Amino acid sequence: MSNNKLLKGLAVALMGASTMANATEGMWQPHQLPQIAQTLTEAGLTLDPSQMQNFEQFPMNAIVSLGGCSASFVSPKGLVVTNHHCVYGSVAYNSTEENNYIRDGFVASSLAQELPARPGALIYVTEEITNVTDAVTGSISADLSGKDYYEQVEKNKKALISACETSKDYRCTVTSFHSGLEYNLIKYLAIRDVRIAYAPPLSIGKFGGDTDNWQWPRHTGDWGFYRAYVGKDGKPADYSEDNVPYTPASFLKVNAKSVNEGDFVMALGYPGSTKRYRTAFDAENMFTWTYPTAKRYREEMIAVIENETEEGSDERIKYQSRIASLANYAKNYGSLLESYNAGTVQERKDALEQDLAKWINSSADRQAEYGGVLEEVRRLQEASEATRERDLLLGYIGQTNLWRLSKRLYKYAHEQLKPDAERASGYQERDVDRLKRGLSSIERTYVASVDKAIMLHFLEQYAALPESQRVSEYDQIFGLNDGFDKDKVMSILDAMHAGTDLHDKDVLLSWLSKSVEEFRNSEDPYIQFAVASYGFSEAQESQSEELNGQLRKIMPKYMQALIAYKSSQNEAIYADANSTLRITFGNVMGYSPKDGLYATPFTTLEGMMAKYVPGDSEFDLNKATLNAIAKKEYGRYFNNTINSVPVNLLADLDTTGGNSGSAILNGDGELVGLLFDGVYESVIADWDYDQNLNRSIVVTSSFMLWAMENIDNAHHLVEEMTVVE
Amino acid sequence: MSNNKLLKGLAVALMGASTMANATEGMWQPHQLPQIAQTLTEAGLTLDPSQMQNFEQFPMNAIVSLGGCSASFVSPKGLVVTNHHCVYGSVAYNSTEENNYIRDGFVASSLAQELPARPGALIYVTEEITNVTDAVTGSISADLSGKDYYEQVEKNKKALISACETSKDYRCTVTSFHSGLEYNLIKYLAIRDVRIAYAPPLSIGKFGGDTDNWQWPRHTGDWGFYRAYVGKDGKPADYSEDNVPYTPASFLKVNAKSVNEGDFVMALGYPGSTKRYRTAFDAENMFTWTYPTAKRYREEMIAVIENETEEGSDERIKYQSRIASLANYAKNYGSLLESYNAGTVQERKDALEQDLAKWINSSADRQAEYGGVLEEVRRLQEASEATRERDLLLGYIGQTNLWRLSKRLYKYAHEQLKPDAERASGYQERDVDRLKRGLSSIERTYVASVDKAIMLHFLEQYAALPESQRVSEYDQIFGLNDGFDKDKVMSILDAMHAGTDLHDKDVLLSWLSKSVEEFRNSEDPYIQFAVASYGFSEAQESQSEELNGQLRKIMPKYMQALIAYKSSQNEAIYADANSTLRITFGNVMGYSPKDGLYATPFTTLEGMMAKYVPGDSEFDLNKATLNAIAKKEYGRYFNNTINSVPVNLLADLDTTGGNSGSAILNGDGELVGLLFDGVYESVIADWDYDQNLNRSIVVTSSFMLWAMENIDNAHHLVEEMTVVE
Repeated sequence: MSNNKLLKGLAVALMGASTMANATEGMWQPHQLPQIAQTLTEAGLTLDPSQMQNFEQFPMNAIVSLGGCSASFVSPKGLVVTNHHCVYGSVAYNSTEENNYIRDGFVASSLAQELPARPGALIYVTEEITNVTDAVTGSISADLSGKDYYEQVEKNKKALISACETSKDYRCTVTSFHSGLEYNLIKYLAIRDVRIAYAPPLSIGKFGGDTDNWQWPRHTGDWGFYRAYVGKDGKPADYSEDNVPYTPASFLKVNAKSVNEGDFVMALGYPGSTKRYRTAFDAENMFTWTYPTAKRYREEMIAVIENETEEGSDERIKYQSRIASLANYAKNYGSLLESYNAGTVQERKDALEQDLAKWINSSADRQAEYGGVLEEVRRLQEASEATRERDLLLGYIGQTNLWRLSKRLYKYAHEQLKPDAERASGYQERDVDRLKRGLSSIERTYVASVDKAIMLHFLEQYAALPESQRVSEYDQIFGLNDGFDKDKVMSILDAMHAGTDLHDKDVLLSWLSKSVEEFRNSEDPYIQFAVASYGFSEAQESQSEELNGQLRKIMPKYMQALIAYKSSQNEAIYADANSTLRITFGNVMGYSPKDGLYATPFTTLEGMMAKYVPGDSEFDLNKATLNAIAKKEYGRYFNNTINSVPVNLLADLDTTGGNSGSAILNGDGELVGLLFDGVYESVIADWDYDQNLNRSIVVTSSFMLWAMENIDNAHHLVEEMTVVE
Repeated sequence: MSNNKLLKGLAVALMGASTMANATEGMWQPHQLPQIAQTLTEAGLTLDPSQMQNFEQFPMNAIVSLGGCSASFVSPKGLVVTNHHCVYGSVAYNSTEENNYIRDGFVASSLAQELPARPGALIYVTEEITNVTDAVTGSISADLSGKDYYEQVEKNKKALISACETSKDYRCTVTSFHSGLEYNLIKYLAIRDVRIAYAPPLSIGKFGGDTDNWQWPRHTGDWGFYRAYVGKDGKPADYSEDNVPYTPASFLKVNAKSVNEGDFVMALGYPGSTKRYRTAFDAENMFTWTYPTAKRYREEMIAVIENETEEGSDERIKYQSRIASLANYAKNYGSLLESYNAGTVQERKDALEQDLAKWINSSADRQAEYGGVLEEVRRLQEASEATRERDLLLGYIGQTNLWRLSKRLYKYAHEQLKPDAERASGYQERDVDRLKRGLSSIERTYVASVDKAIMLHFLEQYAALPESQRVSEYDQIFGLNDGFDKDKVMSILDAMHAGTDLHDKDVLLSWLSKSVEEFRNSEDPYIQFAVASYGFSEAQESQSEELNGQLRKIMPKYMQALIAYKSSQNEAIYADANSTLRITFGNVMGYSPKDGLYATPFTTLEGMMAKYVPGDSEFDLNKATLNAIAKKEYGRYFNNTINSVPVNLLADLDTTGGNSGSAILNGDGELVGLLFDGVYESVIADWDYDQNLNRSIVVTSSFMLWAMENIDNAHHLVEEMTVVE
């Protein structure tokens, strides 16, 4: 079976249908817009939908990626608007004790004052999209082993990328759609002289802090402005004073009034990743085992860290952001589990697969085409879960500093033996700087007692695993063959930490230039541990590639069957998010987060003021903000339906991580806000979109423009943009 | 100036006006209804308002008090409905490990199975209301000292009550309206054979527990049924098997449909106490000093207790309910402060008093009548706050077990020297049982280390007070004359606790029969402390009576001025709540607790199910409830505007503590629900009613009847009532 045949089926399926269970579900590729043109026009799009199917035309060509965030051009002089949290790293990079741009914000009053973004910051403009499915998988024999198939796909992708990246002006990706049913080669113009034009103070840009993260009501001014610079020849260039602002193919006009309740809106951006088509088995495994277990592990790890470090101590401060991150994901998993348990995603997935199986079995042709596919996918997924307990536990043990780094160093020594192109990703020349930064941070993160306590905690759980999941190297090193003896394991850990020098930054870095032989001869206990368990790690990786390769062979067929079935049910299909340009549409609307409560679609400046807590790390406001709100000079930004300036708004847009900074447009294609978050009940959206509960949170263009004029003294940028009403 | 003159002014004021800043503000006495008749009719009352001005006529004569709770007759056979939390003590009294009525609920399937309520339970039916202002204050010379005036008022009240309480079939009160401007003698028929007919399981009656207390969304089935029994002659009688159900003068019909959003509702009940006419000075003192300080003291006390007792230990368990109570009031004060700081109550009080002063000063007649009154009230209130720091601190020190009890015992010995009628309230014959119960509980509450730690904690703050607020007896006993020496004070406390026997119940009780002389000769350190500080305590009490007496002389005049002024502004006046029968009206409506959120006016059975947490102490549901909700057999209780059975609802009724169990009637006078709580933003309502934020929480008649039929098997009671649709 060739992939061409698969693609023909796909094209039919994708063209045929436009109904969805949820009218506003879907992250559409531009070329799919003809399919949903009527729906869009009925929903309120006044632009010609056919105009939007071309990523080289307005408004799509104003939309750019920052790699992980979305953004858009808003002036002919390369001005780019995105979220505050997307420019945060660049603000921090330029911030000092005297010039605390993080706290106070930063406004360049002229081009000359604009500051270089953090090293590595790029603005990606989509230039070409080519279907390369044949080149990636068309010539690979299905008879290959999983591992060989996996490696051949990687090799083909690398060759395509290498041919595409003709200079450092371009970055290219080969991206899978529908689990490998289609591959696209995407070529981006990569603008590398990026500068900060304006960022609001933290008290606006991150108002509400972690407390308000994923929450509504919300009052965050999550915007920030970059400017793209190029050489005088108009081409990307390294930073130079002689560079000039980039002239984008088009830019967005900004609407001073933003929108009203019920209005049509669309988000244009680069959503990162979703799991909408995962199997019922996969979902059940994740929600009944992985998420609850990982949530528990994270909470246990926090408890261990807090137990080992005194509140306010230097040791605790080293772990502050780690604790916040552990807690953040524990909260994220908590939301996933609440939504899963309260909702019907599992039932619907179960029913869908039963229906799909019935549909396949009810036709001889379909049996011939898809017979056994569902069973094969199930078998592979079961196989990949056989050692899930062990794998997750070793994953958490592997988060301790010295263990994580010594493993990486030894792997690095092995990869050095290969030509650069063949090295594992993360161990190539291009990765060395990042690797060094990681090693150098050891002194800011290492607390021996915490590393030991985390290891001890999770080793105890590891030691309780059945024989089939045990790793003889671990058992031997920690003396676990006769069961778990806490004192004994602790004395081994004590000895390891007493005997190692790896907590010294220079020692760590010196290992980057050592040979495999030198590792083998080392007496450092952690290096010895890495050497002893290397065989297991490599075997684990091989096994994973073997399984992944087998899945890569079967999943396109699975998705083809699923798409054909959905098409027979008249359901439109969009691909899972994969960091490529997408369009999603919906309306400004509130929702009921729980019985007896309704989240109204707008918040106001007065509501922001009501949250103000003087001196608080999350809810403080500076004097300029307090004065501006008190004065109530709202001018053209006043919205009489809410009797204030709208601050944030809710819309039933289908978005996910990576959409941060996405332009929110009204039906006329004018910028009315920036997407920056979703509500708590939307965390499950990576798996399942529910129009009743899924709400994106948007900071309005009105709040942004009003603050630029009334708080941050950024009038010149407002004037540079084309503001309409 | 005679009180008759005052009263004439009052009558004019009360009749003249009917506009209020908040249309639904006001806890009206029945006789005031003619004033607001038009407003009521326009709001949706279809009953003739004049019918409601008479407390002896339907529907007012169906409304009874339980002393602290409100209730109403709902059948001709003495069936009384109120809140679950109002019958809780009686359910607990009958509950055993085998018959766990608290957990499982209690349904008497026939009259014979009904169980006696807790000892002392009474149903109060209002029989007579007489204006006795002249008898209370008319003959007292204004020249008396404050203390003498105070005592004369008390004496006159006692005489009126004594004459009124002709047998134990009656209970009488003399109640002040408008700060002593009017006194009413109220005579209640006191039905003393009270039995429990039905209480739902705790998982319905207290669903949501302390977590949901004061919160919306709410899903609590806070109802319970008593039955009033009397002798065969129809008169109140002690419990006897021969007693018969009481035949009330009238009873309420119950509406199966409850109400819809926007519908007119009124609450009929006995609200306990409000502070709506407190002065600006008083408000400022309470909100800027007393509440914040008391909140802090409570939080500190919790911290001290938790520090001294290990989680899960017997000691901690002894303090569990104390901690809950401290936290509950700290939360309550927190809400008061949030509302005060976010709102304008102080500004409005300040403005009102400025306007009042201007109004008085702008007329020679008014100057002659009220000149100096405002200043005198201010002077007295300032005087009473002179030692506020000391008084509050000693109050918290006085909450420790042995100190509280030894002071009470020594006071008791002194009061024994007087004839019973002259003894201080709380120390008369009628109080001895309660006193003994208090002493007997020592073994369930005493933890020496906690008593010592609390004393130490607050003595340190006491020792930092200026000389003018210090008490020489305390300074001497705890060696504080040369400053606070923690070790020294602790060793004194150690010695006191080592040397006392008062933690022994029998020893404590034995002191009830000891003479003042025996106290004086005792070597028990706590008894010595009580003896040494008795003079100070008595002086403090005298001083308080002197100030209160002076306030009793001036406050009626202050209120007269305020009423006359408000009348001149066309504002209607209602008296502060004082546990007498009141009517308040409003509408079923949601509210916005904060920017971006709207509390919808109804919750549903599905919402209750969504809160269900198996095995949780607050959010568990029993099988019968789960099955009944799953079956969705909602019959006549289904409300199609919310697509479910309404569980709880919100209304802008003006209510307070004591209103618990109040009948909520529709415009036709049918029971549509029972009031049981207010939302968090309503806690400040004792001081200030804001129609935007003040919401009472009501359990609907629909939920109650549906649960009686579908969960609790109480069909016979539904049949006994008159259910209409």
